[in-house]
Amino acid sequence: MAKTLRVGLIGYRFMGKAHSNAWRQAPRFFNLKANVELHTICGRHAAGVQAARAQLGWQKSATDWHEIVESPLIDIVDIVTPTNFHAEMAIAAVKNGKHVLCEKPLALNVKQAEAMFAAAHKAKVVHMVCHNYRRIPAIALAKRMIGEGALGRIFHFHARYAQDRLTDPEYPLDWRLQKETSGCGVHSDINSHVIDLGRYLVGEFEQVCGLLNTFIPERPLADVLAKGARRMGKVTVPDSAMFIGRMENGVLANVEATRYALGRKNHIAIEINGSKGSIYFDFEDMNRLKFYNGDDPKDRRGFRDILVTERDGVQPYVGHWWPPGHGIGYEHTFIHVVADFVNACVEGKPVQPTFEDGLKNQRVLAAVEESSQKGRWVKL
Amino acid sequence: MAKTLRVGLIGYRFMGKAHSNAWRQAPRFFNLKANVELHTICGRHAAGVQAARAQLGWQKSATDWHEIVESPLIDIVDIVTPTNFHAEMAIAAVKNGKHVLCEKPLALNVKQAEAMFAAAHKAKVVHMVCHNYRRIPAIALAKRMIGEGALGRIFHFHARYAQDRLTDPEYPLDWRLQKETSGCGVHSDINSHVIDLGRYLVGEFEQVCGLLNTFIPERPLADVLAKGARRMGKVTVPDSAMFIGRMENGVLANVEATRYALGRKNHIAIEINGSKGSIYFDFEDMNRLKFYNGDDPKDRRGFRDILVTERDGVQPYVGHWWPPGHGIGYEHTFIHVVADFVNACVEGKPVQPTFEDGLKNQRVLAAVEESSQKGRWVKL
Amino acid sequence: MAKTLRVGLIGYRFMGKAHSNAWRQAPRFFNLKANVELHTICGRHAAGVQAARAQLGWQKSATDWHEIVESPLIDIVDIVTPTNFHAEMAIAAVKNGKHVLCEKPLALNVKQAEAMFAAAHKAKVVHMVCHNYRRIPAIALAKRMIGEGALGRIFHFHARYAQDRLTDPEYPLDWRLQKETSGCGVHSDINSHVIDLGRYLVGEFEQVCGLLNTFIPERPLADVLAKGARRMGKVTVPDSAMFIGRMENGVLANVEATRYALGRKNHIAIEINGSKGSIYFDFEDMNRLKFYNGDDPKDRRGFRDILVTERDGVQPYVGHWWPPGHGIGYEHTFIHVVADFVNACVEGKPVQPTFEDGLKNQRVLAAVEESSQKGRWVKL
Amino acid sequence: MAKTLRVGLIGYRFMGKAHSNAWRQAPRFFNLKANVELHTICGRHAAGVQAARAQLGWQKSATDWHEIVESPLIDIVDIVTPTNFHAEMAIAAVKNGKHVLCEKPLALNVKQAEAMFAAAHKAKVVHMVCHNYRRIPAIALAKRMIGEGALGRIFHFHARYAQDRLTDPEYPLDWRLQKETSGCGVHSDINSHVIDLGRYLVGEFEQVCGLLNTFIPERPLADVLAKGARRMGKVTVPDSAMFIGRMENGVLANVEATRYALGRKNHIAIEINGSKGSIYFDFEDMNRLKFYNGDDPKDRRGFRDILVTERDGVQPYVGHWWPPGHGIGYEHTFIHVVADFVNACVEGKPVQPTFEDGLKNQRVLAAVEESSQKGRWVKL
Repeated sequence: MAKTLRVGLIGYRFMGKAHSNAWRQAPRFFNLKANVELHTICGRHAAGVQAARAQLGWQKSATDWHEIVESPLIDIVDIVTPTNFHAEMAIAAVKNGKHVLCEKPLALNVKQAEAMFAAAHKAKVVHMVCHNYRRIPAIALAKRMIGEGALGRIFHFHARYAQDRLTDPEYPLDWRLQKETSGCGVHSDINSHVIDLGRYLVGEFEQVCGLLNTFIPERPLADVLAKGARRMGKVTVPDSAMFIGRMENGVLANVEATRYALGRKNHIAIEINGSKGSIYFDFEDMNRLKFYNGDDPKDRRGFRDILVTERDGVQPYVGHWWPPGHGIGYEHTFIHVVADFVNACVEGKPVQPTFEDGLKNQRVLAAVEESSQKGRWVKL
Repeated sequence: MAKTLRVGLIGYRFMGKAHSNAWRQAPRFFNLKANVELHTICGRHAAGVQAARAQLGWQKSATDWHEIVESPLIDIVDIVTPTNFHAEMAIAAVKNGKHVLCEKPLALNVKQAEAMFAAAHKAKVVHMVCHNYRRIPAIALAKRMIGEGALGRIFHFHARYAQDRLTDPEYPLDWRLQKETSGCGVHSDINSHVIDLGRYLVGEFEQVCGLLNTFIPERPLADVLAKGARRMGKVTVPDSAMFIGRMENGVLANVEATRYALGRKNHIAIEINGSKGSIYFDFEDMNRLKFYNGDDPKDRRGFRDILVTERDGVQPYVGHWWPPGHGIGYEHTFIHVVADFVNACVEGKPVQPTFEDGLKNQRVLAAVEESSQKGRWVKL
Repeated sequence: MAKTLRVGLIGYRFMGKAHSNAWRQAPRFFNLKANVELHTICGRHAAGVQAARAQLGWQKSATDWHEIVESPLIDIVDIVTPTNFHAEMAIAAVKNGKHVLCEKPLALNVKQAEAMFAAAHKAKVVHMVCHNYRRIPAIALAKRMIGEGALGRIFHFHARYAQDRLTDPEYPLDWRLQKETSGCGVHSDINSHVIDLGRYLVGEFEQVCGLLNTFIPERPLADVLAKGARRMGKVTVPDSAMFIGRMENGVLANVEATRYALGRKNHIAIEINGSKGSIYFDFEDMNRLKFYNGDDPKDRRGFRDILVTERDGVQPYVGHWWPPGHGIGYEHTFIHVVADFVNACVEGKPVQPTFEDGLKNQRVLAAVEESSQKGRWVKL
Repeated sequence: MAKTLRVGLIGYRFMGKAHSNAWRQAPRFFNLKANVELHTICGRHAAGVQAARAQLGWQKSATDWHEIVESPLIDIVDIVTPTNFHAEMAIAAVKNGKHVLCEKPLALNVKQAEAMFAAAHKAKVVHMVCHNYRRIPAIALAKRMIGEGALGRIFHFHARYAQDRLTDPEYPLDWRLQKETSGCGVHSDINSHVIDLGRYLVGEFEQVCGLLNTFIPERPLADVLAKGARRMGKVTVPDSAMFIGRMENGVLANVEATRYALGRKNHIAIEINGSKGSIYFDFEDMNRLKFYNGDDPKDRRGFRDILVTERDGVQPYVGHWWPPGHGIGYEHTFIHVVADFVNACVEGKPVQPTFEDGLKNQRVLAAVEESSQKGRWVKL
């Protein structure tokens, strides 16, 4: 009889909805090595979290996160709060022997990230940072192909994560636009994803030169706005960020994140060029991977438009879903995260990306930040 | 306190997986007017259906479908069996006062479809045929736009539903390739979807001229193959089908369905051209709708690539899911079907596409079949 | 010392501009086996043809085409008039021993086409019908690939030639919309191109069932309009046309031509599906060929987006132009026609597509027309 | 009677072919304000230039460029040599009162460019640097739209010019890979184009931080290779280059040029994002411009795929060619350059991009170079 792992989720808004769905759905589509119980969901506002409990399918709700991290009934703590809470919660959880899945970026800064990784490592629990985009089937396929040498020596990692919601000056000053809660705004929020994909697919960053920027320095306060009034507050983080750099293996990196690209909704555009092939991916076409194979016959080479929806273990993850061509969506990336995480918890084995990955990511974020402040290159 | 509707599902394979998921997920993402209980799942093979019950989240399982249609505990019967069972099951269910959701095509032939619609109509229950593609957000948006006159007078309905799995001569002789179980092969299986979309978006077919064809007349028997042997059986239905026609409103229709288009996985490519605009849709990019607006300024007209992922009621259905650009998949179309169906059951109102739509569809299928046999045009 | 061939061109408007350019440019980019002299251009209106002579680079002009076909100085006659003049001119030219290049469709009807081919054959001259799209590099590459078996057994030829200029009811009644001058309107004008590509790439048509249609039956008279007045005239040919059919080799054909597809400007979209691969081409992206290779590794198959701009004989024709990725346009197809035609004239060898191809094309056009009139299938 | 301008062309290889074609073709498709005579073509190797003269359509050939710049018969000097010759030739030409069209980059360095601009300015001749991509119809349309405010306040200029020919380590050490002849390799060769487009469409660069890089430091010597032997030489310039920066108007710029992007042939990918709209262009689809209009109705916004092939002055330049949808190619950009240049010579008016533009471009190139050497930001 399979073991049952009880999950406590801290946070219940956008990411709470995505993670709850993943916990519910993973056992339906993957043969997990344990049963999963959606035990308790936790949030600061009692009414909100109670409504979420029912809507999202949890047995209990709580308003004090300590109940979750300390409960002897809970095996797994899943943290989806604003970034400023991650360190305290995760450290408390691992000290209590819980396996921890934590949203990205791992922490507000390198110091917190170091403490989190150290605590998790010491506690010998399974720890994972939720860079869900690693488990897009197309990205996992790219990883396999690169591992097999399909690209040869890699020359370029060129990436742009573009959205458009901050183009509107009326978009309110939410927690992602404030230093205390978000760390470094769009840089930590979405550049962290691209950095993770660069590290996963290509290699470690060695030196960087960045430019962090804030296009619109004041925005309406979200909470005041909610009450029908309107007052402006200061945006204390970058709302756009870019950097160039070198990786340890000599690859040139060009990375940009912005929420000022009208028409780009979740455009994570990644191109990797090597001596034998190139790949291109855009999240807005997440079921596709473009691949140029330099070994194809000379007169019929071209970027292949691979529809990554094949069945039966042909391509990573996606065979658990629907027939070829039928397509999956954003939420499935979280389900793949949960499936791998649960199995790792049962087996007591690490599962990438670990808190150490989260820490390394944080170091790149910090180096770019320092570079932008000082106007010069920074080595990692 | 909200009412609860109890569901019985007959069938548990591919469509059973998709429908079960829809019943589980609809209440999580839509504010349904009733609670939904996944009461009983039914299938002929006890072991299979018991495993499916656990995997797919049903309370009970059964091997005799009469238990479902006759049970006083069941409110809704959802039929996802091979086509040859639809009529008997659906008629029994409606006679017992059940609301019925039935997979497409509605029946093996027009006669069965007429009996089904008559019985459902008489029973005053809610009846719906699961042409799930109507509820792709992009298609629902196309419907809205056409309704608003964005295309003007329509000239062309040009559609091709292309897959590639029958290209392999070793693909076995399953129930879809036999007349007794499928009715008319690829014609009833996937042309029926395109006919439904044509009727939904453009108008009623008036006359048709078709060509049904079988490229590979013999295939290995699936059940024998399963036992490790190999024996060939006759394909008794078309494996490719096309027709041209006129609609009542003068629109020219060109419709094709095939499973011999290598590289096309679930390519439902539809183009509609009108005097004021055109639209193009391809299911393999199901989160997108292409729209050419003849009223845009002359020097900057072009097909708009609308990413149909906007939030908050901007576009149909999709705002219930994730932020813009984050995308949904195949399974979501069934969730949208279930959400609308449940609300219709509560309100006692019809919900399109009804059994009458299924019947009209069947008449088009039959007219094309007759046309192909007789080598001439057939009027509807 | 290379021979010089003197050319006489009859017609000077749209096609006159395209053909003149081809005669001027071919010697600059291809090593022709003869020099080419743009000797005389001919047209009915003296002022118009004189202006064209200077603008388009001809030595002399004439208003009577007999001067061209009878002149001992002329080696090649190039006919780009409205269709109703083709037969008389071409027959006179070949009887005078001229090599003839004639615009498509070859003739108004089968009878004329037969006479043209018979006369040209008897005269032992080089004769070619200008289906310029055969010499798009992407199409020529497709031909090579099909010849090499890259698609295997072919199942489908699916094509749509769509433009949008007739969507506007004010578009005037030009010669293409009148039976006497055009033969069969959009059917002979642009369906003939698709039929030619089908015959070139796939095979001979065996039986067809078609629907010819006229959406807008009356239009302003062009010549009256030119004088500032407005009078309506009857459209006496189809302005949209489609047919389904079988080829001799069992391939299913689906062909459509229309000028009512708003947003489609010169959308010649062709898909060919076979047992080993598929290709897709759209003239609006004429420098590209899409190719799906069923022999690629299972996890990384996808339509290749081949940019057909490689140098040095890698791909047909295009290496004579610019470096990879730099692209050519519409006019280049005519230059390729002229280059091959000139070399054939020097060598005295046939060059495809010959008048016989034009005749076979005409028979398909006629069969579709008869099928549409009689409402039944017609065998070729 | 129209004036005649006599042209002398210095250089006869790749660019000589493209410019000769432009001189021949411009009068055929544009109503120029003067006649154009292809008077003399000049090159160092007598046999080569004589062959080019005949093939490319010039009246005379010469081996000493002084004959061209000093000839009283010549009105226009067109310079298409390697970069190291530009300054001396252009200065001599303008001093002799010739109008000068000069290939890009204008010079080897800022000092040369300053002298060239000063001399041309003093001579009061018409001077133009051949950044031909400004006259792609899609780019000219983008310019018009930006000028009309269609993008609003601009936030981002994001560009990548990617080719793949240096991926092959056997690609020889040509003049573009040597400092003395090319200035700064791929940076001056193709980044200069992107810088020009940035300046043309968006604004002046204010500060930059760059990284110039050489992936393959040694390559076979081209001239030795031509003799059948093989000896390696040192690549003395960057073969890849990227920089980030700010423009004077606050726009963030991200620019990259490489010849190590396998599968990218002439991929000049440019995205500009503003508060009201975005545009995207890729030279490999040069007949298209993507435009996202933030003012379209909320439920049907999307990047428009504008086929920039409209007739009759609807869109810039392209109406002089073929009907909508018929497409032009690379060479046409040079024809547009020549057409505008000739008219400017007749009118005695400046024509963009002038030598001053070439000089400003050179300053950006130099600032990036300095930034890369010093590892810090450089202000312009």
